[in-house]
Formats: sequence, C-alpha cells, structure tokens
Amino acid sequence: MEQLEQLYEGKAKKLYATDDPDILWVEYMDQATAGNGAKKAQIAGKASLNNRITAVIFDLLKARGVDSHFVAPLSDTEQLVRRMTMFPLEIIMRNTAAGSFAKRYGVDEGTELKRPILEFCVKNDDLGDPFINDDGIVALGLASPEQLDEISRQARAVNDALLDIFSAIGVRLVDFKIEEGVTSDGRVLLADEITPDTCRLWRVESDGTVEHLDKDLFRRDMGDIIPAYEEILERLEQLAADEGIERS
Amino acid sequence: MEQLEQLYEGKAKKLYATDDPDILWVEYMDQATAGNGAKKAQIAGKASLNNRITAVIFDLLKARGVDSHFVAPLSDTEQLVRRMTMFPLEIIMRNTAAGSFAKRYGVDEGTELKRPILEFCVKNDDLGDPFINDDGIVALGLASPEQLDEISRQARAVNDALLDIFSAIGVRLVDFKIEEGVTSDGRVLLADEITPDTCRLWRVESDGTVEHLDKDLFRRDMGDIIPAYEEILERLEQLAADEGIERS
Ligand SMILES: Nc1ncnc2c1ncn2[C@@H]1O[C@H](COP(=O)(O)OP(=O)(O)O)[C@@H](O)[C@H]1O
Ligand SMILES: Nc1ncnc2c1ncn2[C@@H]1O[C@H](COP(=O)(O)OP(=O)(O)O)[C@@H](O)[C@H]1O
Ligand SMILES: [Mg+2]
Ligand SMILES: [Mg+2]
Repeated sequence: MEQLEQLYEGKAKKLYATDDPDILWVEYMDQATAGNGAKKAQIAGKASLNNRITAVIFDLLKARGVDSHFVAPLSDTEQLVRRMTMFPLEIIMRNTAAGSFAKRYGVDEGTELKRPILEFCVKNDDLGDPFINDDGIVALGLASPEQLDEISRQARAVNDALLDIFSAIGVRLVDFKIEEGVTSDGRVLLADEITPDTCRLWRVESDGTVEHLDKDLFRRDMGDIIPAYEEILERLEQLAADEGIERS
Repeated sequence: MEQLEQLYEGKAKKLYATDDPDILWVEYMDQATAGNGAKKAQIAGKASLNNRITAVIFDLLKARGVDSHFVAPLSDTEQLVRRMTMFPLEIIMRNTAAGSFAKRYGVDEGTELKRPILEFCVKNDDLGDPFINDDGIVALGLASPEQLDEISRQARAVNDALLDIFSAIGVRLVDFKIEEGVTSDGRVLLADEITPDTCRLWRVESDGTVEHLDKDLFRRDMGDIIPAYEEILERLEQLAADEGIERS
C-alpha cells in the first residue's frame, strides 16, 4: 500500500489517499483540542495511544458483530481504513448525564438516564456543531430517512457493545461520539475513531468519587491524559487477549 | 361560571380557577415580551386581539377535526378553557426556515424546508428553553413515549389545518409554537394559544418582499403590531363566516 497525497488535516488526524481508491491512510497526531479548537496543545504520546486504542476497540466491536471502516494497523500512529463519504454529523450516545447535556437541561453530571439517549449535532465548526433532530437532518438533506434509521440502529448497537467492553474493564461508559459514512458501494458504516478523546470514561469509586479517564482531564485542566489513556489501552488489549480475539 | 383565585401570571396571560375544577378562566394581557422576557412592553389592544384571534383559530381548527382546550369566549380579553396538566414543552412546527432555526444551521431565512420540521424545547425560562429531542424528552420524564407520539401526531395535524387556514387568507405560515397538556381524564390535547405572538405569518409579495404580520414586528423593532394583528383577526373572522362555522 502506497501513501499518496494528503487529503485533509483535522484537529486530531491527517488523511492521505493511497493507491487503492477505497482505502485511506490515517495518521494520528499528538494534538489535543477542546472547545471547538479554542484550546489546543501538543501532547507527546497521544497519537500512538489513540491509534492503538481505536484499533483494539474496532477489533472488540467486530467480535461483537459491529463492523467499522477499520482495515489494518500500519505503525504506532497510522492505520488504514475504508474510504467513505462522511455524514456531516456528530452522533452522540449518552448513558449518564454529563457535559453539554447536563448543562443544557440543568441535570447534575452523573445522573443515570432512564434509557440511552441518541443525539445528533451538525459537524460544522463555524456553526459550533449545533444540535439537530431527525426532522432537521432529513429536511436539510444531511441524510435520507433510511440512512438515518440505519445510523440510529448502528449507534445503539455500538453503545450496547461498548457498554459490554468497558464494563469488562471496570470503566463506566458515560457517553461517546461517533461518525458514520457511506462506502463507495452505498453501505452505511461506522468510521472515524473511538478513543478517550471521543468517549467519557469514568472509574466510579464506592464512595461515589469519579476518576476521569478521558479528554475531560484536558478540557477541564484536571490532570495528565497520558497515564489514563495508557491504562485504557492496556486493559482493552488484555481484554482482547483474554477473549482470544483475532487482531486486525 | 364564577372567577376564583388567580393561579398563575405568565408573560401574556393570567389564569384563574373557576367553580368548575375542570375549567380555567384565562385573561389575556396587553403585554408583549421577547427574548425570554428581556424585552417587555405594554401594547394597548393586544389582549383583545389575541384573545379573539386564538378563539377563531380554535373554532376553525375544530371545523377541521382538530380539538383544543377552548371552551367559550367570556369577554374581549377573557375566555374559558379546559384545565390541563401541561407538558413542560414548547412544540414548534416549521414550514420555512426562520428565527432560531435559520441562525442555528446557517440557512437563509425564507428557505422552504423539504418537509415540515417538528422541534421541541423544554419550557423553562431559567434554562433558556433548551432544544431537546425525543430521546431526551422520554429520558428526562417530560412525556411518556405514547404521549410523545400523540403530541407529535397532533402537532402535524395542527400544522396541516393551519396551513389550510392561513393559505385561505393569503398568508404564509412560516412556523408556530403550540403547547399541549393532559386533561383530568388523561387525554392529550392542544392548549394555550395560537396567535401572531406564537406564529410567524408572512405576506410574500410577487417580488419576494416579506411583510411580517406577527410578533417579529415587535421582536425586531420593525413596526406596530396592532394593525397587523387586526388584519389577521378580520380575515380569520371573515373566513369563519364564509365557511359557515358555528362559533363557540
Ligand atoms: N473512513 C473515513 N473516510 C473518510 N473520512 C473519514 C473517515 N473516517 C473519518 N473521516 C473524517 O476524517 C477526519 C478525521 O480527522 P479529525 O482530525 O478527527 O478531523 P476533525 O477535526 O474534522 O474532527 C474527520 O473529518 C472525519 O469525518
Ligand atoms: N388549558 C390549560 N390548562 C393549564 N394551563 C394552561 C392551559 N393552557 C395554557 N396553560 C399555561 O398557562 C400559561 C399561559 O400564560 P402565558 O402568559 O402564556 O405564560 P408563559 O409566560 O409561561 O408562557 C402557560 O404557562 C401555559 O403553559
Ligand atoms: Mg475528529
Ligand atoms: Mg406563553
């Protein structure tokens, strides 16, 4: 596989074309951002951790019947994925109230939700990633009704599988964000990354104290992300080994 | 019917108990507010216009098979309604992009939407009436899934009927807000008011110029609301007379 021209540089990753028109070369960067890019830092080791975390998560998901764009690892900071036409949507699943949800509705962070909540935001930094509902998505032509049903079904399946995975490593999955796209042959599929940048992962002590093992450490200046991300990676790798999962 | 103690004073109306526990006495006020109460004014004649406009609209809706809480007019500024337990929701239907929708998604005001959009906001001035989706409504216990389905069905039926009514008087129904509640015997029903305070009503000239016949005149300091509201009332009264509708 040959790396060709750079197609995109985002806040956390660079995308390159390859000699296969259906395959992209993704390079993770040591960059952390928050508040829509308002806060930015270089954090040595983050690229490698997120590249390896998302790889093991995609493998653990596959073993649970959830497919993704992930094709193969390339190096510590690079991987190959299926090239997709992305929906301009941030797809958010919440099991516990936190972050923007807690603030928006005046609910205490940490409140268990009666049932998982699926939310969509338009992925558009200039507009501040505005919240949108199903009618809005269809009316603005961001996805067809059939695609939206499939995205929603997959988001709930990803949540079920991730809840299983993170509970197996003693971590509470509070919420997460995924992105989906359409393959060249029209299939709706999970893409982008699943890492502590895109999930809220809490270790809740018996006295109720919360230890954050995710990007809130950076967002809220609560500590170094590297040890937390390292622990998540180690535990997920161990889980995959324990389950005898074939690694991509 | 006897007027008993005042139960509530809102931004546009006062509610009184009556000697019938299932009936409320509503008094419209000459008050206009915008931006969640940040802008406020007394506008002589508004109470009477809105009280009479919402009455004729509820009668026109009834003739189209859409029930509401409206029971009977009492005076120029007062009416009797069925007492309900309100859902803490602002139920918004949009046919054309305008206001917060246009701003949120960077869409030009006046853009026709591919299909009507139903939106919900939590009715909570302290939180700034935050946008919420179906999952959020159920998870926060604001309505049951069955109630939410019924509210949505009714909101779309109200939109169909109002589109018919306003097109008959040469006005474009851009969007509107309704409120729903539950009667003492558990029935989900349309409540509150439908007036130029709660609808965007445009007269669109052949050259595309928009004449606003609604509260945006006040919100955006574009002119006197009274002549616009008077014209809406007159035309609706004429329509009801033309249709031979029995008035409450
Ligand atoms: N399989 C894929 N095919 C095409 N684009 C993808 C795929 N997976 C993720 N992307 C896109 O690649 C970009 C990833 O880079 P990132 O640094 O996360 O960017 P951003 O700052 O836009 O979130 C995102 O725009 C994401 O939508
Ligand atoms: N049939 C009804 N039964 C009980 N409450 C109602 C009914 N119809 C409307 N309401 C409530 O009465 C109040 C109307 O007064 P208003 O001035 O519009 O108040 P607000 O400033 O809260 O919007 C609203 O809170 C509305 O939810
Ligand atoms: Mg990203
Ligand atoms: Mg009101």
